Amino acid sequence: MKVRVLVRLRPGIMDVQGAAVQRALVGLGFGDLRDLRVGKVIDVDVDASSVPAARVRVDEMCKKLLANPVLEDYTIEPVEASSLEATSALR
Amino acid sequence: MKVRVLVRLRPGIMDVQGAAVQRALVGLGFGDLRDLRVGKVIDVDVDASSVPAARVRVDEMCKKLLANPVLEDYTIEPVEASSLEATSALR
Repeated sequence: MKVRVLVRLRPGIMDVQGAAVQRALVGLGFGDLRDLRVGKVIDVDVDASSVPAARVRVDEMCKKLLANPVLEDYTIEPVEASSLEATSALR
Repeated sequence: MKVRVLVRLRPGIMDVQGAAVQRALVGLGFGDLRDLRVGKVIDVDVDASSVPAARVRVDEMCKKLLANPVLEDYTIEPVEASSLEATSALR
């Protein structure tokens, strides 16, 4: 079962990498850029019988290793639904 | 207009960070982990009149700076639809 974890800095935390990228893009002529933040996407394939079972397991992984709860928030998404949504957005 | 960019290593490219995280998780007792790959998520807020216009602009940003086309693939997703999809997946 494939799920996707998005790990991002919490809202109050300064995103140094994002700020640097944003400044570089504005320098390249992207003056229409309002905000930019950088995080991690972790694609996980886990041996589970259902999407909810996979989510529970991946949530444990996030708590134990993948995310730092002091600095970061994470969200878990099923991969199939996200792909469908991405495809429909192209229409 | 908010869009989300996912930047991942191309399939053939060795993901050293992902391999290290995977080994660490297996060591923590997650023997049901089949595969894991790490990439970047970039949340971009761009001044555009529509989602397609924002996608075009962010695609230019990816080509010029955000992704390295030799090593990385990227996908652009609208943020609103993704949030709805993530919520519906929780039901």
